[in-house]
This record gives sequence, C-alpha cells and structure tokens, in this order.
Amino acid sequence: MAQQMTKEETAPQLNGLDTVALFGTLAAIEQTPALADFEFRASNQWISGGENRSRIKEFFGVGAEDESRNSAFEFTNGEPPVLLGNNEGANPVEFLLHALAGCVTTTTVLHATARGIQIESLSTKLVGTMDLKGLLALDDSAPIGYKEIRIEMDIKADCSDAELDDLLAFAQDHSPVCNTVCRPVPVTIERIK
Amino acid sequence: MAQQMTKEETAPQLNGLDTVALFGTLAAIEQTPALADFEFRASNQWISGGENRSRIKEFFGVGAEDESRNSAFEFTNGEPPVLLGNNEGANPVEFLLHALAGCVTTTTVLHATARGIQIESLSTKLVGTMDLKGLLALDDSAPIGYKEIRIEMDIKADCSDAELDDLLAFAQDHSPVCNTVCRPVPVTIERIK
Repeated sequence: MAQQMTKEETAPQLNGLDTVALFGTLAAIEQTPALADFEFRASNQWISGGENRSRIKEFFGVGAEDESRNSAFEFTNGEPPVLLGNNEGANPVEFLLHALAGCVTTTTVLHATARGIQIESLSTKLVGTMDLKGLLALDDSAPIGYKEIRIEMDIKADCSDAELDDLLAFAQDHSPVCNTVCRPVPVTIERIK
Repeated sequence: MAQQMTKEETAPQLNGLDTVALFGTLAAIEQTPALADFEFRASNQWISGGENRSRIKEFFGVGAEDESRNSAFEFTNGEPPVLLGNNEGANPVEFLLHALAGCVTTTTVLHATARGIQIESLSTKLVGTMDLKGLLALDDSAPIGYKEIRIEMDIKADCSDAELDDLLAFAQDHSPVCNTVCRPVPVTIERIK
C-alpha cells in the first residue's frame, strides 16, 4: 500500500471499486489471514403477528469492531393478507431473495474488477419456489423452505461470452449468500432463560 | 370457512393473528394441496461497486397472482468502507440475518398461535461468522458463506418452559428461511444472451 502512484493511478476505479484498495486488502489478508475473520450481527424485535423489525449496525472484521456507521439500518418484515398480514413489509423469504441477488451481483462485480473486466450493466430476476405445506406442518414429505431458486442474469461487459460464463460460474461458487443457501449451514437457537 | 360464529368468535385474534383465517387456510390447503404452491420473486439492478437495489412486489400463491400490493418494496444493498463501499445500505449477508430472524420469529408466532400459546414478547440476536478468504478466493479450504449462525432468543409466553422449548424446536424445524440456510437448496444462474 506504500507504493508510489503515477498520475494515472491516483483514481484507479473500475466498476465503482477502488482497485488499489481491493488489491491492498487482498495483500493484507494474504499476509495476516485472521483479518478475514468477520462476524455479522442483527437484532430483531417482534411487533405483532407476522410483523417484526431488525436493527443492523455493528460488525467485526479486519481485526476490529467496525465504527463506520453512525446509525443503524432498520428493516421491517411483514406478510401479505393471504399469509395473514397487512404487507407491513416484504416477507422474510422475499428478503432472502434480495440478499441473494445482491450477493451474487456484488461477487460478480468484485471478481470482474479483479480480472480487469469492465461491467456496463448487470441486473437479475429471481424466482424461488416453495410448498407452504412444509411451514404449516401439513405434510411431512413437503420440503421446508425454498425448493429451488432460479436467477436470470442480464450482464453486459467488455469481454467475450466465454469469459463472462467463466466469471459467472466463479461468482456463483464464491458468493457468500449463494453458498449459505446451496450448502448446509448450521443454525442454532438458544433460548435465554 | 362457512361456519357460524358466535359473538365471542367474531374477533378471534391471538398474537396479532386472525385465528379463524389461520385455521381456514389450513383447512383449505388440506382440501386443495396445490394452494400451498408459492413462487416468490425479486428483481435487482446493479448501481456501482457494492451498491445494488431490489424491487419486490408480485408473487404467486393460494392459486393466484397476488394483487394486494399497490407499490413495490425497494431495498438497497451496500458495503461498509472496509469492504470497499460507503454504507449505501446493509450488505447482503446482513440482509440474510434479517430474513432469518424474521422467519424464525414469524414461524414461532404462527405455531404458538396454532397451539393456543399467547406470546408476551419475543426478540432475537443473531451472530454469523464468516471467513472472507472464501469470497476472495484466497484459500480453497476456507468455507464460502456463513460458517455458522447463532440465534439467541428472548421469549416470554403463557406456557411452561418445556412447552416453550418444544415450540422453539418445532419452529426451527419448520421455518422456511432457517431450512433454506441449514439444508442445501439448489441455486441456478442463467445468463440472458
């Protein structure tokens, strides 16, 4: 990071990412792998029925508690009338699609940037199918949660189709939310007594 | 649903849920299982760097396209400075915690209501651990995505501790987002050409 920069390198942006910071982060983690240990957090308060609200602010990463956020992000889960709510917010399985869309997109942009690929545009449409007999405990053979999630991606970039396909496969393999969904990740619930 | 209601049953709410509608939904799905087939959707547009925005409105369920929402919900993913962003929004892995918190909470409230348990208060704190060497492709042995997610739940209800523990275990087993995380769910990405 102490490298001398030429004039051309003073604002090295690609796809809206600071490439000096990106390669600096990669080098720092290679030297001190523990910097890559992150802990993300959320707290949530039930309001009524299918309505509840999360607060997200602090996290740990790069060896320290993050102090960059002056205020918390707040998000409200709700349910539509057919699921006994009043559309107080999107519902949790919809928020999961938002998380997945964002993660696949950001991972694609990150690795495109590392490869020197300039992205012109990128949008996704997601569809997730679910059998609610699982949630409602009406059929033990019904899968609980999403059966599958399909992502349709429209991406334009200054590279070949083969390079794009390779980039997308790599991004899918390395997206944290995509892997949290497609791999089994242990969840534990502990009740405060 | 055509049952005659007595005066006491005209506003049958428990935990903010309409219990007549709840048991009516269960009966309707038992009679016509295909009503439980849902399709949830999101579309997402990349903005720059780690910033992108989702739009969530339409879904299919109970045998029809839902028409209850006049406008779309919109959510912005961002990244903090240590992850090369400007806190344009919470980041995707944090949104996943919000989805998980909301789903475990709503599933708990739903099955408490079905059991006649009145919940006084319910809040959760979530912590998810992650090794970013996975995302950054710096170490092939690093797990990609969350290593584990721990939920601490503070719940007060008009039942015994044993009944609460049974309710929580049942809710964890039947929460769609919790199962999408702890089970492997297939994700496919198709590029529009």
